[in-house]
Amino acid sequence: MCDIIPKKLETSEEKLNFINSFDNFLFDCDGVIWHASTVLEGVREVLYTLKKMGKRIIYVTNNSSKSRATYLKKFQKLDLPATLDDIFSSAVAAAYYVKHFVNIKEDEKIYVVGGEGICRELEEQGVHWCGSDDDNKPISEEEFTEIQPDPKVRAVMFGFDVNINYRKFARAFTYLNSNPDCLFLATNTDMTYPTKHLEFPGTGSMIHTLIAGTKRTPTVLGKPTTNMMDCIIQKFNLDRSRTCMVGDRLITDIAFGKNSNLSTLLVLTGVTTVEAMNESKDIKPNYYISSLGDLHA
Amino acid sequence: MCDIIPKKLETSEEKLNFINSFDNFLFDCDGVIWHASTVLEGVREVLYTLKKMGKRIIYVTNNSSKSRATYLKKFQKLDLPATLDDIFSSAVAAAYYVKHFVNIKEDEKIYVVGGEGICRELEEQGVHWCGSDDDNKPISEEEFTEIQPDPKVRAVMFGFDVNINYRKFARAFTYLNSNPDCLFLATNTDMTYPTKHLEFPGTGSMIHTLIAGTKRTPTVLGKPTTNMMDCIIQKFNLDRSRTCMVGDRLITDIAFGKNSNLSTLLVLTGVTTVEAMNESKDIKPNYYISSLGDLHA
Repeated sequence: MCDIIPKKLETSEEKLNFINSFDNFLFDCDGVIWHASTVLEGVREVLYTLKKMGKRIIYVTNNSSKSRATYLKKFQKLDLPATLDDIFSSAVAAAYYVKHFVNIKEDEKIYVVGGEGICRELEEQGVHWCGSDDDNKPISEEEFTEIQPDPKVRAVMFGFDVNINYRKFARAFTYLNSNPDCLFLATNTDMTYPTKHLEFPGTGSMIHTLIAGTKRTPTVLGKPTTNMMDCIIQKFNLDRSRTCMVGDRLITDIAFGKNSNLSTLLVLTGVTTVEAMNESKDIKPNYYISSLGDLHA
Repeated sequence: MCDIIPKKLETSEEKLNFINSFDNFLFDCDGVIWHASTVLEGVREVLYTLKKMGKRIIYVTNNSSKSRATYLKKFQKLDLPATLDDIFSSAVAAAYYVKHFVNIKEDEKIYVVGGEGICRELEEQGVHWCGSDDDNKPISEEEFTEIQPDPKVRAVMFGFDVNINYRKFARAFTYLNSNPDCLFLATNTDMTYPTKHLEFPGTGSMIHTLIAGTKRTPTVLGKPTTNMMDCIIQKFNLDRSRTCMVGDRLITDIAFGKNSNLSTLLVLTGVTTVEAMNESKDIKPNYYISSLGDLHA
């Protein structure tokens, strides 16, 4: 059971007190900042105000498919305050984790199942990789005997990959199955991938092919794990007591803040209703507000 | 606990008594009849002898990728006694199951993740299908909005597919997730796929992407389920008390016979040793023999 009673931010005084309690705000994006490519009402103004007040803003997303540079273009197009450094995707977390928390050697590499987001971020950290788009072509009959264990593959990094295929499953499986020292890393475990009207399988679904086949459990680097937060806290040298996680999902965003002893703000513009928040037994936010756009100081 | 004490077939008399006890023999292939494309010593002679004695021989395999016609060519090339009718793969079971145990309508179809084996067998049974090789091309950005639920898809049939891709996962996920009446069928749940030197992910591993994503449990049609045996018994009108399942694996072949109240013979030319058989608590064969090739009457 969770003994937090979420406090609703209503009056200007409550909102100002809330803002003054923190120096750093971590924001989930979809459902908080925007829906698809439409910025939610009032959010742009709130973000610029927070920036003007000297607050640090970090956008935290489990999407690992885009690089930060590609992501930044979206922020710029939508006229939202952001620099490359303000964006922290699970791809950034993954690369940061490999560089700073894994003792990877110069001649070792990461086998990537995933998109360019992960590869670019690994390169930024000076970490060698293989796989990804290079393995998009379908597997040939010869490869059923050619694919071999490779002790130089220090980790399999599994993220969202629209070009998933048997070649990638077979390679990842072989590296993990043949070498207990080969790490098994996942950018996130989101079970579904939201499209415009439907949900498709997410990273957390697809990685179950490898979990079932290898009987190994991946180290997850995205929300809501403390691994991702540890990377954020260390990279930006944040004071946890002065940092608030803002999101629309209890089991990813709010749990993410809570797991790492941060304060949390739930917005009701995404998937969670006030009823669901009240009914939730384990995960409740410290604060909630109907919309981030309502956070006028 | 299992109270069977496996009886070793040693003397000519024991072997002849064993053979005389049955009219029908179901054989697993790999590890029993052949290793890859080499027939095990003495096996050809034993099979021809059984045929000459008027026994019915049925080859039972979980491999769903090849059609029976393609499979038959292997038997002919290896000079083994077989007709199209003697071959019963999980693809045959799957098609037979859909035709005889599912009330499928004329305008309904099966979405196939798998190879030509399944498609040809469905056609044999006059069942419409979609998917398979037609969905081998990678998913495009437009399809992220184009793929839609389809009430005409009566079942998703998941088998081994070297051309597995995101398009297939997304389609199968959408049909299963949007329609609780859409059946979820699996040709088998073998976790690994043996190659010449290594193991790769099997059908049972890959299907976990859909199990995890949809939270649904597939109906499995291959060994060791009684579904497959029910199809065999019905199709060939066999007397269970006069039928023996012969295999090299306890958890697939021997369990397969046992689950359906058949007698079982374990051969030691495959993955199971006599020590493993003795140590097994739950699954023991009624009979065992060092090699099928030793079954000279």
